[in-house]
Amino acid sequence: MKIKYSDLLKYIEKIFIEYELSKLHAKISAKYLIDADFSGVPTHGIARVSMYCMRIKKKLINPKPKIKIKKISPSIFHIDADNSIGMVAADIATDLLIKHTKKNGIILVGVKNSGHYGMSGLFAEKAAKKGLAIWCYTNAPPFIPPHGTTKPLFGTNPICFACPTNNIDEPFVLDMSTSSTNRGKLQYALKIGKKLEPGMAFDKNGNPTIDPIKALNGGMIAPIATYKGSGLAWMIDIISGVMTGANHSGKVKDPYNDLSGPQNVGHMFIAFKADIFLGNNYKKRIKENIVTVKKLPKKRNLLKVCYPGESKSKIKLKNKKNGVVVDPKILEDLNKTAQAVGLTIKI
Amino acid sequence: MKIKYSDLLKYIEKIFIEYELSKLHAKISAKYLIDADFSGVPTHGIARVSMYCMRIKKKLINPKPKIKIKKISPSIFHIDADNSIGMVAADIATDLLIKHTKKNGIILVGVKNSGHYGMSGLFAEKAAKKGLAIWCYTNAPPFIPPHGTTKPLFGTNPICFACPTNNIDEPFVLDMSTSSTNRGKLQYALKIGKKLEPGMAFDKNGNPTIDPIKALNGGMIAPIATYKGSGLAWMIDIISGVMTGANHSGKVKDPYNDLSGPQNVGHMFIAFKADIFLGNNYKKRIKENIVTVKKLPKKRNLLKVCYPGESKSKIKLKNKKNGVVVDPKILEDLNKTAQAVGLTIKI
Repeated sequence: MKIKYSDLLKYIEKIFIEYELSKLHAKISAKYLIDADFSGVPTHGIARVSMYCMRIKKKLINPKPKIKIKKISPSIFHIDADNSIGMVAADIATDLLIKHTKKNGIILVGVKNSGHYGMSGLFAEKAAKKGLAIWCYTNAPPFIPPHGTTKPLFGTNPICFACPTNNIDEPFVLDMSTSSTNRGKLQYALKIGKKLEPGMAFDKNGNPTIDPIKALNGGMIAPIATYKGSGLAWMIDIISGVMTGANHSGKVKDPYNDLSGPQNVGHMFIAFKADIFLGNNYKKRIKENIVTVKKLPKKRNLLKVCYPGESKSKIKLKNKKNGVVVDPKILEDLNKTAQAVGLTIKI
Repeated sequence: MKIKYSDLLKYIEKIFIEYELSKLHAKISAKYLIDADFSGVPTHGIARVSMYCMRIKKKLINPKPKIKIKKISPSIFHIDADNSIGMVAADIATDLLIKHTKKNGIILVGVKNSGHYGMSGLFAEKAAKKGLAIWCYTNAPPFIPPHGTTKPLFGTNPICFACPTNNIDEPFVLDMSTSSTNRGKLQYALKIGKKLEPGMAFDKNGNPTIDPIKALNGGMIAPIATYKGSGLAWMIDIISGVMTGANHSGKVKDPYNDLSGPQNVGHMFIAFKADIFLGNNYKKRIKENIVTVKKLPKKRNLLKVCYPGESKSKIKLKNKKNGVVVDPKILEDLNKTAQAVGLTIKI
């Protein structure tokens, strides 16, 4: 059964409101999670609602945060998210970037005391649709062993970059973890009862495993490209964690398994006007760039070369029209979360 | 035979001056190349002097460029390098970052009409030693096939990030190509007559090869982590090339084999004060971060875990004291380049 966007949005909003999020924060949070599902990334979507609600119940996420925005210079802002749900802090940061790049050209926003914010690419997409080139960085709970070590410490720390293309509705959005897979994919595999591809993950003793439980319980995953991925993950831990005042060096808490306190995730956002150097010429040149790549000879059986984010944009458009199929286990989990606070509606 | 830093610097400076670089530009260029050799990265060092000189002779590098710096906003600068030797343009950009971050906190510099600038990490290191967090991006001649295609188009486009550690002389400097190896390493292997490690490179038909000539002549190398490395290389082509007005999408010319015009490489630099959010607390936190990683259990036979750039700093310090051994083929090449313009001294 396919579920419509508006139905799912209303349902998740209601759940979040019952868990004491304000109407605005419930709407923002629900929208980003559902957009992940509708973009074909269910690992970072509504599958995580029960986790967020569990952490609110345990007072590890603050449903009514007093988010402080400190203006350090006309180009630099520091946000203390007061342990808000991550999507709210990241959305505020994105709006700051959009507002202030108009005047100052380039804006830097550091965020501390935040939480898991879902799918980076959605914030980047929002900014790129307003003409910005943007990087979104966030650290995450320990899962990658630093190069040369045997214990997980860095998170799957994603690099996300976006910029406008000649089609304003379909920006270039690169959104990649610096690890060979990510926690969301393991959790999703666990939730729907799938095994992992070999080589992805290791158990707590460093032995290869295809069992998501073993990988998630004290296990680890390899960074991309050995020392290079480790270096990138370290860079992101420094800029998102060390520099902003958030947790770092393995201290960001696992949102599922570590209930000893708020996560204190850190994010860093940098954005500038993509056409700052070239004006209207930018649009012409990015089109030329993309067309050139698309015209290259393709690998056997490949019909089309896409730029990062392109197929997600198309999938989202299509899904918004037709609805999405949600895995029954994810739905069951959602309904349980709703019932736990007395919501009688189901989806 | 070990060669002293000052002797090599004087020699390369003299060569560049004979090739009509100004004294200042000769000094800047020589210094960055020698620093690469002394940092243990001979692929990006004096092995390239003959290439730069050949391109000056053929009027493809402008030895007396009129470099224009356009101030777009207090935080944004656009440099037209007038086909200068790359190190000069990158050094001017680095100095702009250092000067203007003091007042504005964050600075963006785009560069067009530049050339190969050697080792990114050296510019990043210079800025980090002045307290900056910095990214240096540059595009490069086609060598990586975009994901899904069978023809090289992106360069080995490096990501370089640096920031201060608690030891101001040894910053964190991540300097990595987005490819499984880089052109410098292939050229160096060719120059000293070494074969490549299997899996690194492909010939022009896409077959694996260990012969650097086959890889360099129309061949290609794989990006790191398949689609992720391809996406990163694409991002760097967009920000360094498309956005600045430099060549892009495979049009940056190979400095060795393509004599049809100036390279028109593009660079993009972004820097901000590393302690902008936390002041003195930054130093304490970055130390804590690094110490935590260093204390992790190590892989068998590994004595020490280093952060990116740490061992290069130590190698440079040691080499500056003792001198470096330069491969005889590189020296012969240097001496030929010197003799071609009537320099009778040798090293």
